[in-house]
Amino acid sequence: MTKINKNFSNLGENYLFAEIARRVNEFKVKNPGRELIRLGIGDVTLPLAPVVVEAMKKGCDELGVKETFKGYPDYEGYLFLREAVAGYYKRFGVKIGTEEIFISDGAKSDAGNIVDLFAPDNRVLVTDPVYPVYVDTNILSGREIVYADSNEDNGFAAMPGQTPPPDLIYLCSPNNPTGTAYTFGQLKAWVDYALENKAVILYDAAYEAFIEDEGKYPRSIFAVDGARRCAIEFASLSKTAGFTGTRCGYTVIPLELEADGMRLRDLWYRRQSTKFNGVSYPVQCAAAAVFSDEGLSQIRENIAYYKENAAIISGTVKRLGWEYTGGVNSPYIWFKCPGNTGSWEFFDTLLNSAGVVGTPGEGFGKNGKGWFRFTAFGSREATASAMNLLDNLYRSDTVRQK
Amino acid sequence: MTKINKNFSNLGENYLFAEIARRVNEFKVKNPGRELIRLGIGDVTLPLAPVVVEAMKKGCDELGVKETFKGYPDYEGYLFLREAVAGYYKRFGVKIGTEEIFISDGAKSDAGNIVDLFAPDNRVLVTDPVYPVYVDTNILSGREIVYADSNEDNGFAAMPGQTPPPDLIYLCSPNNPTGTAYTFGQLKAWVDYALENKAVILYDAAYEAFIEDEGKYPRSIFAVDGARRCAIEFASLSKTAGFTGTRCGYTVIPLELEADGMRLRDLWYRRQSTKFNGVSYPVQCAAAAVFSDEGLSQIRENIAYYKENAAIISGTVKRLGWEYTGGVNSPYIWFKCPGNTGSWEFFDTLLNSAGVVGTPGEGFGKNGKGWFRFTAFGSREATASAMNLLDNLYRSDTVRQK
Repeated sequence: MTKINKNFSNLGENYLFAEIARRVNEFKVKNPGRELIRLGIGDVTLPLAPVVVEAMKKGCDELGVKETFKGYPDYEGYLFLREAVAGYYKRFGVKIGTEEIFISDGAKSDAGNIVDLFAPDNRVLVTDPVYPVYVDTNILSGREIVYADSNEDNGFAAMPGQTPPPDLIYLCSPNNPTGTAYTFGQLKAWVDYALENKAVILYDAAYEAFIEDEGKYPRSIFAVDGARRCAIEFASLSKTAGFTGTRCGYTVIPLELEADGMRLRDLWYRRQSTKFNGVSYPVQCAAAAVFSDEGLSQIRENIAYYKENAAIISGTVKRLGWEYTGGVNSPYIWFKCPGNTGSWEFFDTLLNSAGVVGTPGEGFGKNGKGWFRFTAFGSREATASAMNLLDNLYRSDTVRQK
Repeated sequence: MTKINKNFSNLGENYLFAEIARRVNEFKVKNPGRELIRLGIGDVTLPLAPVVVEAMKKGCDELGVKETFKGYPDYEGYLFLREAVAGYYKRFGVKIGTEEIFISDGAKSDAGNIVDLFAPDNRVLVTDPVYPVYVDTNILSGREIVYADSNEDNGFAAMPGQTPPPDLIYLCSPNNPTGTAYTFGQLKAWVDYALENKAVILYDAAYEAFIEDEGKYPRSIFAVDGARRCAIEFASLSKTAGFTGTRCGYTVIPLELEADGMRLRDLWYRRQSTKFNGVSYPVQCAAAAVFSDEGLSQIRENIAYYKENAAIISGTVKRLGWEYTGGVNSPYIWFKCPGNTGSWEFFDTLLNSAGVVGTPGEGFGKNGKGWFRFTAFGSREATASAMNLLDNLYRSDTVRQK
């Protein structure tokens, strides 16, 4: 008799986005035809850069001609793309070997599948508020999870020191959902803590391209001394180059990284060659084009556009006098709901009074209670319009009458 | 301290294809410039159909324009593609709902990741010889594996009846590596056995497009009564439409399928939404084009081409008087090495005397000892040339002197 994985019943409801969708639908039924502005989910809106589209189409054409047709790709990705990724790292001063790079269909797949490498009895640390994937994938494989609070007291930047020490540590910087980024010094503290306790850091660098103050915030954990002996890094083209619908990410596992005397790079290669068959050839062509000089110049414009959105949002929130983090070095703005309103209460007010959809911080963990997240990935018009509505809704009468 | 998944050490060496590569490289060093004909790995060689390339390029163009840009795809695939897959099933008389279809980056990923749904203490049955993915993924998650012999005694079609009964049953038809297909009656016996023992069948239909005798051999397990209550089906465009480098497959989980009182379709949705972010939009466009009338007509020509290769190979093997299976309803030809030669011995002879690379049956399991696999996915020239060389090498002197 087939027995299912009992850990499924330990998963919470896919509460957050399902509940958002439910409330939005209810609103739509009650307000037919009323326009909504969505600054909730972190999905991009700008099209792919022209050089990327051309490269992808060229890849398609090659698949249509016998002489240039491609069959199974390498499990770890084509060398031309791994070289391009290594070159990208080199631009911000980090040296990575091509044999340490694994191309995938996205950082979420890798961050989810990486748990296959580890025993169920590892204790997992996540910072709270947290991107739900780190939690759910570990619940599914039956691991104990401990939470490190990120809150107003530490500037939403949880620091190490937990006892007993965890065995696996998930860090995300710039952070989703709080928009905070770890400084070199803060990240060094995590690396030292991991090395001291022989823990592995699973580092999500999905938003690294938004870092502008590179002297203060590392774009890769491998810019920190010692990280090559304790960290795996996940990165993605989703937010860097608008690949949410194109699907391509990469994971870096240094050759030095070992646990239980085994090289994690080799275990991941074995995992991927067993359960994965590589990334679509045209997608790999598109990804390589992102890392060309022309590609980087084109995507830089897109990132600048989103950053300007972030500035508009954080400017509004600041003007309203609300506490917030993020908005620079990050596409997320994380702010305290006004007047001690609860996250969901604020969500409802914003939806019903302004037709604006954001994400209640409470959905990301207990430290998100009373906080709220906006993303900078909307269009300029939608973002500006939402901020005008927010401003009208919350500006004090005094200010309004000036 | 991080503890790794101990089951990695229970995996065999990735022996088969690594060892083939080692011997081929040795040969190349010794015989510089000598041409090799590869009929080993089951990778296709014909280019994508024109209508497929056009659809994929149109998808790329849409990603390059703001108005038609696509962000995160649905976890389960775009409805337009799930409708196309449902329509494809309908052509061979099987009714599947779009909510039962999950689009993925390939059948290997799904066949590998599906184990996340089940408890570690399920007993897993695989037929031997076997596609290594079923075995390795279950070793990695620590399950007991039992083997059902497929051999000359049962025409390389293992049948049910094992006691104690397994909880999970992997079947592949048409089979990799033996090229045999289950008849309706044989598959009904497996379905009845699974229902009786509340086991789940994990059915790999990757080669269904090669079935020509549709009255005798089902193209889907769901053509068999009762299968909707006990089976999951994996399928792929890799061999159907040359998608090995384009990457797209689909998995069907009927709504009725339950285990431990839970609907497996819902568990898979939860697994995919937690660890996967959907398939590249242009790839989904390409896949949908395969299932159009024009697409199906174009890929039918490619399948006919490979079938003609299969006929050339099986004709040669037959003429040489060797026992074999497959070659019809399948792209694989599985034959007994002449004169009780071992699989690897035959491999070496073939490589060194003729420069032809095939796959030693022994690599697929104990019942493959002394057997060998050729694939029909080479070019016509390579296939014909390899068969001429084989014929010259093994035709008896008597025959040769006629």
